[in-house]
Amino acid sequence: MKQQQTGDMKMWGGRFAEKTAASVEAFTCSVHFDCRLYRHDIAGSRAHARMLARQGLISDEECRLILGGLDEIEGEIERGEFVFRPELEDIHMNIEKALAERIGPAGEKLHTARSRNDQVNLDFRLYLREECDRLDGLLAELQRSLVTQARRWRQTVMPGYTHLQRAQPVLVAHHLLAYFEMFKRDRQRLADCRRRINVLPLGAAALAGTGLPIDREYVAELLDFPQVSANSLDTVADRDFVIEFASAAALIQVHLSRLAEELVLWTSEEFAFVELPDAFCTGSSIMPQKKNPDVPELIRGKSGRVVGHLMALLTLLKGLPLAYNRDLQEDKEPIFDTVDTVSASLALAAELMAGLNFREEKLAAALRRGCMTATDLADYLVRKQVPFRQAHAIVGRAVAYALEQGRDVAELSLVELKRFAECIEEDVFAVLSVEGSVNSRNSLGGTGGARVDEALAQAESEI
Amino acid sequence: MKQQQTGDMKMWGGRFAEKTAASVEAFTCSVHFDCRLYRHDIAGSRAHARMLARQGLISDEECRLILGGLDEIEGEIERGEFVFRPELEDIHMNIEKALAERIGPAGEKLHTARSRNDQVNLDFRLYLREECDRLDGLLAELQRSLVTQARRWRQTVMPGYTHLQRAQPVLVAHHLLAYFEMFKRDRQRLADCRRRINVLPLGAAALAGTGLPIDREYVAELLDFPQVSANSLDTVADRDFVIEFASAAALIQVHLSRLAEELVLWTSEEFAFVELPDAFCTGSSIMPQKKNPDVPELIRGKSGRVVGHLMALLTLLKGLPLAYNRDLQEDKEPIFDTVDTVSASLALAAELMAGLNFREEKLAAALRRGCMTATDLADYLVRKQVPFRQAHAIVGRAVAYALEQGRDVAELSLVELKRFAECIEEDVFAVLSVEGSVNSRNSLGGTGGARVDEALAQAESEI
Amino acid sequence: MKQQQTGDMKMWGGRFAEKTAASVEAFTCSVHFDCRLYRHDIAGSRAHARMLARQGLISDEECRLILGGLDEIEGEIERGEFVFRPELEDIHMNIEKALAERIGPAGEKLHTARSRNDQVNLDFRLYLREECDRLDGLLAELQRSLVTQARRWRQTVMPGYTHLQRAQPVLVAHHLLAYFEMFKRDRQRLADCRRRINVLPLGAAALAGTGLPIDREYVAELLDFPQVSANSLDTVADRDFVIEFASAAALIQVHLSRLAEELVLWTSEEFAFVELPDAFCTGSSIMPQKKNPDVPELIRGKSGRVVGHLMALLTLLKGLPLAYNRDLQEDKEPIFDTVDTVSASLALAAELMAGLNFREEKLAAALRRGCMTATDLADYLVRKQVPFRQAHAIVGRAVAYALEQGRDVAELSLVELKRFAECIEEDVFAVLSVEGSVNSRNSLGGTGGARVDEALAQAESEI
Amino acid sequence: MKQQQTGDMKMWGGRFAEKTAASVEAFTCSVHFDCRLYRHDIAGSRAHARMLARQGLISDEECRLILGGLDEIEGEIERGEFVFRPELEDIHMNIEKALAERIGPAGEKLHTARSRNDQVNLDFRLYLREECDRLDGLLAELQRSLVTQARRWRQTVMPGYTHLQRAQPVLVAHHLLAYFEMFKRDRQRLADCRRRINVLPLGAAALAGTGLPIDREYVAELLDFPQVSANSLDTVADRDFVIEFASAAALIQVHLSRLAEELVLWTSEEFAFVELPDAFCTGSSIMPQKKNPDVPELIRGKSGRVVGHLMALLTLLKGLPLAYNRDLQEDKEPIFDTVDTVSASLALAAELMAGLNFREEKLAAALRRGCMTATDLADYLVRKQVPFRQAHAIVGRAVAYALEQGRDVAELSLVELKRFAECIEEDVFAVLSVEGSVNSRNSLGGTGGARVDEALAQAESEI
Repeated sequence: MKQQQTGDMKMWGGRFAEKTAASVEAFTCSVHFDCRLYRHDIAGSRAHARMLARQGLISDEECRLILGGLDEIEGEIERGEFVFRPELEDIHMNIEKALAERIGPAGEKLHTARSRNDQVNLDFRLYLREECDRLDGLLAELQRSLVTQARRWRQTVMPGYTHLQRAQPVLVAHHLLAYFEMFKRDRQRLADCRRRINVLPLGAAALAGTGLPIDREYVAELLDFPQVSANSLDTVADRDFVIEFASAAALIQVHLSRLAEELVLWTSEEFAFVELPDAFCTGSSIMPQKKNPDVPELIRGKSGRVVGHLMALLTLLKGLPLAYNRDLQEDKEPIFDTVDTVSASLALAAELMAGLNFREEKLAAALRRGCMTATDLADYLVRKQVPFRQAHAIVGRAVAYALEQGRDVAELSLVELKRFAECIEEDVFAVLSVEGSVNSRNSLGGTGGARVDEALAQAESEI
Repeated sequence: MKQQQTGDMKMWGGRFAEKTAASVEAFTCSVHFDCRLYRHDIAGSRAHARMLARQGLISDEECRLILGGLDEIEGEIERGEFVFRPELEDIHMNIEKALAERIGPAGEKLHTARSRNDQVNLDFRLYLREECDRLDGLLAELQRSLVTQARRWRQTVMPGYTHLQRAQPVLVAHHLLAYFEMFKRDRQRLADCRRRINVLPLGAAALAGTGLPIDREYVAELLDFPQVSANSLDTVADRDFVIEFASAAALIQVHLSRLAEELVLWTSEEFAFVELPDAFCTGSSIMPQKKNPDVPELIRGKSGRVVGHLMALLTLLKGLPLAYNRDLQEDKEPIFDTVDTVSASLALAAELMAGLNFREEKLAAALRRGCMTATDLADYLVRKQVPFRQAHAIVGRAVAYALEQGRDVAELSLVELKRFAECIEEDVFAVLSVEGSVNSRNSLGGTGGARVDEALAQAESEI
Repeated sequence: MKQQQTGDMKMWGGRFAEKTAASVEAFTCSVHFDCRLYRHDIAGSRAHARMLARQGLISDEECRLILGGLDEIEGEIERGEFVFRPELEDIHMNIEKALAERIGPAGEKLHTARSRNDQVNLDFRLYLREECDRLDGLLAELQRSLVTQARRWRQTVMPGYTHLQRAQPVLVAHHLLAYFEMFKRDRQRLADCRRRINVLPLGAAALAGTGLPIDREYVAELLDFPQVSANSLDTVADRDFVIEFASAAALIQVHLSRLAEELVLWTSEEFAFVELPDAFCTGSSIMPQKKNPDVPELIRGKSGRVVGHLMALLTLLKGLPLAYNRDLQEDKEPIFDTVDTVSASLALAAELMAGLNFREEKLAAALRRGCMTATDLADYLVRKQVPFRQAHAIVGRAVAYALEQGRDVAELSLVELKRFAECIEEDVFAVLSVEGSVNSRNSLGGTGGARVDEALAQAESEI
Repeated sequence: MKQQQTGDMKMWGGRFAEKTAASVEAFTCSVHFDCRLYRHDIAGSRAHARMLARQGLISDEECRLILGGLDEIEGEIERGEFVFRPELEDIHMNIEKALAERIGPAGEKLHTARSRNDQVNLDFRLYLREECDRLDGLLAELQRSLVTQARRWRQTVMPGYTHLQRAQPVLVAHHLLAYFEMFKRDRQRLADCRRRINVLPLGAAALAGTGLPIDREYVAELLDFPQVSANSLDTVADRDFVIEFASAAALIQVHLSRLAEELVLWTSEEFAFVELPDAFCTGSSIMPQKKNPDVPELIRGKSGRVVGHLMALLTLLKGLPLAYNRDLQEDKEPIFDTVDTVSASLALAAELMAGLNFREEKLAAALRRGCMTATDLADYLVRKQVPFRQAHAIVGRAVAYALEQGRDVAELSLVELKRFAECIEEDVFAVLSVEGSVNSRNSLGGTGGARVDEALAQAESEI
């Protein structure tokens, strides 16, 4: 961002006798970060100018001049030619001043019937509306990676865990689709949040509305807002749409942290369930043999900053009286960093997942230990009319016996099994096999192959 | 809660050779807090039992016994007669064990085809669904207080603030309705959250679904869930519905903290805008003259704990691999305290708002200072074709002149005003009056009387 | 806690015309949690009474009566016979009222020259001073467990990790002593915090000190405070000692969460580095084979609530004007739960660590894979005058070659190694062995046996 | 920061077959922020090179080359001529690579016996040690402002508040010195934190120490560290010094938020206790009369981000296994922003406080209302042998009587006062005056003039 210091030119200086202290200017200035909103600020000003002209508050010629000037300024900013002046405080004043310098008095009319209080709110809503859509796209992309991989590894079984202890065999596809569901809810949350973002604030003016004959519904139409904010004080004072966005983003990043944790585990020598492409790993400056899962580690770590930003925003709003307070300027940086962090993490996660290779021999080996079909044995007994609690106790004893011998419960002989429950027959071995176990779990939402096929088809139809 | 220690009776003890250490039992036990879910646990068990019977997994007679036993247990708990045993860990095992003791083997069949992993999830969803509804009712009650007061003080004007500096006059009703809007969005957020809570988890079993022929849709129907969870791993592993609820609650409490801050300000000797009934204040143990606004102070302070609980839950989930981990047991206490805190705060806020008296003479006096109609003067000049930026500068100078003399800009004479802009005429004084200012702001969402009447009517129709 | 409702008896009711609303009483009441401070409140009152008598503000006889009454009340509370009355708001008023009921007018003199604002501050400082000492003891206990185990497994080598990838072999003792250091710093932080807690607040009165001739230094002496607070407004307004304690506690719990994470990993079937005693694990309600590391999982999860409480307290204090505000009442519950959580977690962690068995055969097997002595090879080349960066690259290529063949770099022959660097000789194999690697790392603080012996001796001397 | 992309040149690439993906490079790169540590990185490398030479690990000539090269690089960075290459990941690799390009093989020896894991830790400790000192200076500067103002307004009385209700008269100096005390403790906390920062990590190498014959104590001496870290795993794995710093910073900013809140209140038209210089305020883009206290508002608001960063760091560390994980790279940005925010806020607060003018006539007027000497009347009765509780009740009634009549209790006549307590005599009026009240509060730490003089003298001697 080009910046230039050019003496005092505050647009609110009428009543002030002293120049603003340089330290104060530096402290209160926001243009080094809110310049990011230039497109939205200009879009908002265009709509505002059109409305002013339609309402006769400016002439058509003035409107034409303003629109032309804004086009020029936008072009300059895009080409990196625009010089931002910190002493003009923010993006709004920088653009307005530049406009006035270009087109004269018409430029000085643009701020008619609006205030920075409603203007910045508009810019931020336009920005967040766009970001909701972009994040939704990135979530969909990640879902696509997951579904593609689920389809690819549809036949592969892996250990399912609870308490990080092997619990029951599950399809790799089933595991991947669990994340599909999480990100699906994340998209729903963003969509809900977007509805509350998608309300036109412009026209609230400083805090109380304006006495000039504006037409908010026309501005809403121009900017594609289905709704106009209902109370001017609320409009400039509240930031719950910002916090709601930060909450939704925090959940996304926390979901990513869980996926990342699993990737870190799975790439360890101990699990060795997956292989990450070299392109996604980095080495060590000192240990020549290292191939580190840096990307998932960073994704996991970045949950900290996203959660921190949510905390920052909640603290910010706590105890503020109505209406606008300057504290609210602090709402932008946490959100910008949240958007950047979550976007980059989602994009990388999608690439990572697409590049993942499961090591089937390692998964198969893991499935041979952990007595993961013990529940199947208990359910087998239930089908033989043993009350579940007794079945559970019986199998518990069989497991203890097997472990003592360093064997899996699936490796016991019929004779041995019968010692624990007379009703066990030859058909038990179908139940005790990994395949038997997986395929039997055909309850809705379960890991049974038929169910996972349905889920896969459903997921594929959604994306 | 009655508790009794009765030796080892773990329901999962089959494979264990050693008794659980007492310190471990105390540390892992949750029944002292999750006993709060007894109604939901029993409701879930009833539906589960009915389904088991319908599917032939238990007999009708067993089902009858189970339902009868559950009724008895529920009665005992409600009458405070049930003895909770910490060594049985949680509400689920306490009830299941009590059932088995009462009805024998049939009781040992209840846990067929379910796990505590899906059971606790069900209980918590039933609980939170209910609490969403209750909080919605409390929010509506508070909105009613606000609307009633807005109607009552419909004619009263107060200073509107930005930066806690007097900015423009607004109707008290307009100010109160700003909070109406905030709480309206809070209700929408709760409703959105409720949709994601309202999904049946039962049937996910431990993590992978079950091989027994259950009917999840029938259970959903019995418990009034419009949807069944789609992926068993996701179902037992994720808690985003809990965090989303905590986020919505944090925003409610932050909104309350702002209302509370204003009440604290308004009851100060300096503002003195309102009088709180004695019944809502407390005194000092040492200073006999004090009448303190303790209730709003506590409401404001309690935003800390609700925000803290949200942070607790996000930290909890960060980096957990799938599926269920015992960490998740920590999801309940923060939510229980959140529900209690937000409920009590909302109820008190509604009472407080209903009891509020505005001191009109104080408001009127406040309106006489602060040059709050300066913006109206600038808009007046705009209507006389002065570009807004120039109008702003002219009025700035007039304000500086008035303040130097210890007067309000509304108190300047026409002669004096004309020194700043020749085009000012006698009609300016209508614009400079508080009433003129308020009534002119008739933009949509503005504080103009007609707009506020519309908003009031709309609000009254909504509640 | 016994509670009883007995009509209006506020001790500050003089100027109030209306009775406090029941909902307000319930909302503002704190005795259900601050009753936990009864010992500290009574200790403070004893010292205060003695000082009042010494200064002639009460007679010796009155002092005697007060001390006797306080003894009685303390006894009753300890025996569970004392009836706490919620309408008396807090522990202070409950005890003062009970005293007055027992001993008459003398009891009504106890509150002379003090306020609840300084009284509660005193109680809380006495409480936290004690808890600092208790937590210090628990940290020391955990350190002892770590040192004992480090001594026990002094000869055992395990893989050291970075990025959860095997990095270099380290002694188990070295790994355990890493936690010793963390908890050592935690103890230092508590000690630093304790110094700032250990300041007498009593005598600040409501906010401004008192005009009565009290002797704060005498009270400090009686209660063993080395310092008296310097500014009365600061004394009643600030809570930084509370937040500092919460910060120190959060770090302890975060350290515990890391230890817990490792225990969860190490008890997984994949790592299988340690065996937890059955007494520290629990089973599954559905999967008979499960033995879950619930204790470390809960310890890890509880980091959420402790961090959440810190956030609650920071939010609480944000933006509060001086001096006392009722919001501050909210400082206690987060701290009580923090103390309980951290205490229980430390105690369990100490027990757990004491009961840990390392599975040496598993560690040995793990050490055979991962090319963990690759850095040693690079250092070997450095000693042969190869610049480190070249050495690193050479070894990188050797590792790639070994991995391609499914071998560890330590398993390459001299001929093979020489292909990568001519200067490699027979002596390289000492360097490539796990033992050679560990024992060579004799830099200060390194994992070399001699260094670890020093560290162990140092640690043993400290505890 | 100049950046240039120059193809693959990873310094750990030996074992890698694939080039790092561009998206991964961008995601994992840190040089855009850790370039801020260039001075510390170079200082650390200088000391490391000297030690390597002294230990014979490099030659003196190589050392001379390295030191010369580092000087050059430092000069280039300072002059903005150095081109940072993102594909070299971080500041460490950028400098090392630039060195090797300048001085050849000697440069490739600099990384001997160290890893980025201990190197970055060193850089960060050097940085934070410096920042502790700088923040200490800024805190001292703010204390100086407070003391200067306290001296200047030594005779001025203002209302003291609890619950934002007028409570008792206090000296302005006493109020300002309350903040002096808070910032004094903040300095102590920073000093304590600095002790734990001030430990040499270099020599921990990647995680386990090194087998090369380094001399850590010599490096410590060169870099002025009084202590060398005791355990290499702990050294590279933990970040508690970072979190402790963030905690101390959060408390500073929360203290500032309270001072800021008071400034916002005091500059409101309602309080009007102080006047801020125009140079510290800004105006409104729409309301020409506004003079807004933006600086205190922003300081208050910025507490959000500092608290958020602490939350980010705690979340980051939660549940990470030993030793180094890439997540830890996320420790820097929150701290850099914390340092910038707290520094700027402290500097501005010091300027602001220095520029503050109290409006004595407004304070005097405020003191006339609020019955602020009611406690003095109660204490008067205590001195006449009325038990305090009865005295409190008597004065409560007198206050109620006075308020009914719209008078202050100090305005009641002797006859009226005697109606409430016969023992009241003419001398009561000395007690009821503001001056009498303030001057009587001569308990240690109280607002009495003599005490404040002592406190002022003490404060002046400290700074």
